[in-house]
Amino acid sequence: MNNIPTVILAEGAFEDDGLCKTAYGLLRYAPESIIAVIDSKNSGRDSSEVSGLGHGIPVVADLDAALKLNPKRLVIGVAPAGGGLPAEWRKYLVLALEKGLEVVSGLHLILGEDKEFTAAAARGGGRIVDLRKEPADLQVASCRAQQVSAMVVLTVGTDCNAGKMTTSLEIVREANERGITAKFCGTGQTGIAIAGWGIAVDHVLSDFTAGAAERLVLEAAADKTARLIVVEGQGALTQPVYSGVTLSLMHGSLPDALILCHRATRRFTEIVNLPLPPLKEHIIQYEEAMRLVKPVKVKAVSLITRGMEESTARRVIDESSRETGLPVIDPVRFGAGVLLDALLDDSLKKQPLYSGTKY
Amino acid sequence: MNNIPTVILAEGAFEDDGLCKTAYGLLRYAPESIIAVIDSKNSGRDSSEVSGLGHGIPVVADLDAALKLNPKRLVIGVAPAGGGLPAEWRKYLVLALEKGLEVVSGLHLILGEDKEFTAAAARGGGRIVDLRKEPADLQVASCRAQQVSAMVVLTVGTDCNAGKMTTSLEIVREANERGITAKFCGTGQTGIAIAGWGIAVDHVLSDFTAGAAERLVLEAAADKTARLIVVEGQGALTQPVYSGVTLSLMHGSLPDALILCHRATRRFTEIVNLPLPPLKEHIIQYEEAMRLVKPVKVKAVSLITRGMEESTARRVIDESSRETGLPVIDPVRFGAGVLLDALLDDSLKKQPLYSGTKY
Repeated sequence: MNNIPTVILAEGAFEDDGLCKTAYGLLRYAPESIIAVIDSKNSGRDSSEVSGLGHGIPVVADLDAALKLNPKRLVIGVAPAGGGLPAEWRKYLVLALEKGLEVVSGLHLILGEDKEFTAAAARGGGRIVDLRKEPADLQVASCRAQQVSAMVVLTVGTDCNAGKMTTSLEIVREANERGITAKFCGTGQTGIAIAGWGIAVDHVLSDFTAGAAERLVLEAAADKTARLIVVEGQGALTQPVYSGVTLSLMHGSLPDALILCHRATRRFTEIVNLPLPPLKEHIIQYEEAMRLVKPVKVKAVSLITRGMEESTARRVIDESSRETGLPVIDPVRFGAGVLLDALLDDSLKKQPLYSGTKY
Repeated sequence: MNNIPTVILAEGAFEDDGLCKTAYGLLRYAPESIIAVIDSKNSGRDSSEVSGLGHGIPVVADLDAALKLNPKRLVIGVAPAGGGLPAEWRKYLVLALEKGLEVVSGLHLILGEDKEFTAAAARGGGRIVDLRKEPADLQVASCRAQQVSAMVVLTVGTDCNAGKMTTSLEIVREANERGITAKFCGTGQTGIAIAGWGIAVDHVLSDFTAGAAERLVLEAAADKTARLIVVEGQGALTQPVYSGVTLSLMHGSLPDALILCHRATRRFTEIVNLPLPPLKEHIIQYEEAMRLVKPVKVKAVSLITRGMEESTARRVIDESSRETGLPVIDPVRFGAGVLLDALLDDSLKKQPLYSGTKY
């Protein structure tokens, strides 16, 4: 987020890490830019008391209080219940734009197409950034992602909300700390808010979804020092609601390796409640879906163990490693070193496209 | 197409069955409603002399000549080169709308959002039907397609343009001829033009693509006499440009059986030129992609043998049947009876969703 002084709008919901996914993502991965969180319910507390993140960042009661800290940007950090825009938020956003702030939104509602917001921005010099707004010039994919020289990694999951964004960010952080230039390609609103760029691939016409993934890889590779490009995955092949988006990302970004992400406590898929198959079944499925386009492997498993005792976490990590025969770690709890090592095993090697079936 | 007297616009391209896919589809599957084809290059000939289809249907020079036959509908039957709308066509469409015709378009350009066309329609009482325009109230999928009592069949392919629409229509025709009420769900512009309803799933936000497939199945099942619902597939799992759309159709429509469609002469995938794997590899891949959501089988192969001598066609059909262990036929050349028989083998049985992995 480029260190622009930022306030996060988390009104009425800052305790809820699900509703406030974007707020928590920013506090975890871009805390240096955050100067306040707005939530009247928790006003006066420290961010870390409420969320466990952002030590030293104050929670304030409203936008007026936040404006005293001289922010340049307001990020909507909470998904409003029901998907609509509450009336009192509308006033906040109008005020922020009138005060010249950049307002960053991941809502399905495109603020830049709303006359009240565009008028406020025109009056005050504010700027609207709609994270979900698709670029106008998207194209269908055409295997161009194969041309980049950096190794491309895609995080895939056993379900939605399985740690794909977090795992991607942790791998990028670990690589950069080791001096390996790594780029993160955000594909969902939170990932895009954290990285400051990306495409919300679930908000793209289905014909262009793979093309959007391809474009992200090519844009990341424009930095010629990049040796590793990590694409944030979405959905899961076993999540029927979003599986098409998942496969579009796989065949558009043409990864050289996959990292499988899983929440250790999950037993049924979200939304449709199908039983969640064992990890090795997911691995078979992901590798099969790549085999006839670009045969690549799942190189490691990222196991999110949040909510487990540390000893339990270590035990399920060991069990999962035995089951899959792969390196397994919880990158949030224990760092992403094990995952990066598994990728470096190949010396960041590019993999070829499918070249036919041998008999 | 409900037997509304229809002229097809195929100006300058009626010999080209690729460019005029919609024209050929209508002439093959809904000829009773077609009263003329417009193409100045072939004016004065019989449709069947140019296309091999539509015996007795005249090709006329322009819209004025067509209007003398008193049409109620004009269908754009040719994809304009470059994707844009040629200036002379614009005049045609305006005139048709001014004369009170229904104008049916599968162009990416949405005619109903163009002021010149909406004004012409308002003046003359014409109606614009944009086949590619998505319904406003699409939702994400949620496995509701599993609730229909009819057997659902999805055609899948080894590539784009592999005979999925044709195969679907031939199966539906064969079933209806045998007294089994069957419904066709169109998912592309030509299929929708033929059926008179459907959703162009490649023109839907990727989040809603599976939901669009689900909706089509539920709409088809609203006819309680329907025992068989055939969903027109799109793309292919091995066609990286469109594979996400393919998987969305699979997991949204939740078929009880798959029919694999293949062009016998194809050796490389369209657009990206990857080598085309053997049929049995495609079957493995399709069944694997269904296994952890709803484990179903490919029941037969539709092999399009156009361009082959009949003896060669019979030989490749036999070879493909030996390779796959499945019934194989070219439904255009030899009828869809073999395919329908393979489906009836199961007595139109519903298949259950994935219920966990056994060890």
